[in-house]
Order: sequence, then C-alpha cells, then structure tokens
Amino acid sequence: MHLDHVGVATDDAAALAGLFTDLLDAGVAHEEEFDGMGVVFIETDGSYLELLEPLEAEGAIARYLDRNGPGIHHLAFETDDVAAALDRARDLDLDLIDEEPRPGAWGHEVAFLHPASTGGVLVEFVEH
Amino acid sequence: MHLDHVGVATDDAAALAGLFTDLLDAGVAHEEEFDGMGVVFIETDGSYLELLEPLEAEGAIARYLDRNGPGIHHLAFETDDVAAALDRARDLDLDLIDEEPRPGAWGHEVAFLHPASTGGVLVEFVEH
Repeated sequence: MHLDHVGVATDDAAALAGLFTDLLDAGVAHEEEFDGMGVVFIETDGSYLELLEPLEAEGAIARYLDRNGPGIHHLAFETDDVAAALDRARDLDLDLIDEEPRPGAWGHEVAFLHPASTGGVLVEFVEH
Repeated sequence: MHLDHVGVATDDAAALAGLFTDLLDAGVAHEEEFDGMGVVFIETDGSYLELLEPLEAEGAIARYLDRNGPGIHHLAFETDDVAAALDRARDLDLDLIDEEPRPGAWGHEVAFLHPASTGGVLVEFVEH
C-alpha cells in the first residue's frame, strides 16, 4: 500500500504550514475545517503532510496535544477498499478503532487501527 | 521534497516488519545493522517505513523508547544535496542536530533538524 499521508498534530496549522512549505519547497494542496479541526494538506511529492489543529477544546487532536504535545500523530495508507483493509486487520487480530469506514477529511473514506496492536503506530486506511 | 521514509522506533523490528508486511501487502526492501541498531526498510509504494530497533542499551532510539515507548520517530525527506537543505534550514532559523551531512543507514547521507523548531516533528534530510 502507498503511504498516502502523515498526520501531524499542531496548535497552529497555518504557522506550521508556512514553515514546512518553506523548508520542503512544497505547496498547500488542500485546506478545510473538518470535525472540529483545521486541516491543511501539504504536498510532499507523492505523499502529503496533514496538519491537524483542534478548533474545539474536545476531540482526539486536542487530547493528543494535551498528553503528548505537538508532533507526528498517524500514518495513512491508501487503499481502494477500506472495508477490505479492515478485514485484513481483523484477520491479523489487530484492534480496530473504527469497525467500518467513515467519512474523513478531503471527502475521503477512512478507518483507524488502535496503535497498541501496531507497534505504537496509529494507522489509518484512506480511500480517495 | 519527496517524503522518503518514516522512521519507527521498536523493541522488535523483525516482529513489526512481519506485521506491516502482512497488513500493507508490502515487502522488505533492505535490512542491516547500523550504528548499534537493527534497521529494516519496508517498501510502501513510493516511500519506506524504516523500523529501528536498538541493539545496545545506549543510543538515540534506546533513549526514545525509554521516554516515549514504541511508535513513529521521524520523517525523512529526500534531497540531492543535504548540505543545501541544511543551509535552507539555517536560513529559516531552525535548530540543527547535525551541522553537516553524515553517513546514515543504507549508505545514505543524512542530517537531522531539532524537533523543537519544527512543530515537534523530527525531520531528516536524506540523499541516496
């Protein structure tokens, strides 16, 4: 599977987008507000950085920042069938966060696995 | 810049490689012992996961595991000139871990930036 994007938790997506676009000579591919977050996708020549800023005090990214501070949050792998990817994860006895695909940012279908069963790596499947 | 690989700190690179190759329908591209670590690169269709297992009690990955547990460790961006990428980082007033390129795994030239100045993201430049 293709590594589609890396999610990064941040308190200030606009500032971090400015830094990474300068540092990596990259462009912003997409921006939106989604599920209580400000989301900025930066194109990194075949993959993306997805910068995630909480816009509400509650929510997964706000809790992540409280516990861990800013930094790399998850890895997303591209599939043309999120449900089939979840079935494969079930066959491997991995713990799922999402039992079935749900809407994600940028109009994608997504599902997450629990990092406890994947070496501490929060894994997302994403279908464009 | 192309996202070349994502580094993952682990206590058991062989076990995690088995899990990710099954989950992602991916293959092992390269394995070596480097700088007191067992290193396994998994091909993820245009990028790699670099699994890093400490083989000695001292070292950056051993310390990372002690402090944070296993999980995503760094992002590496490909450049054809690590020294020029470091100059760009200096121009942006970022903190460097490596003031000049040094040998990395897989025979690459690498240099790291300090995560404190890049939103908590440990950034590596890598030249193949």
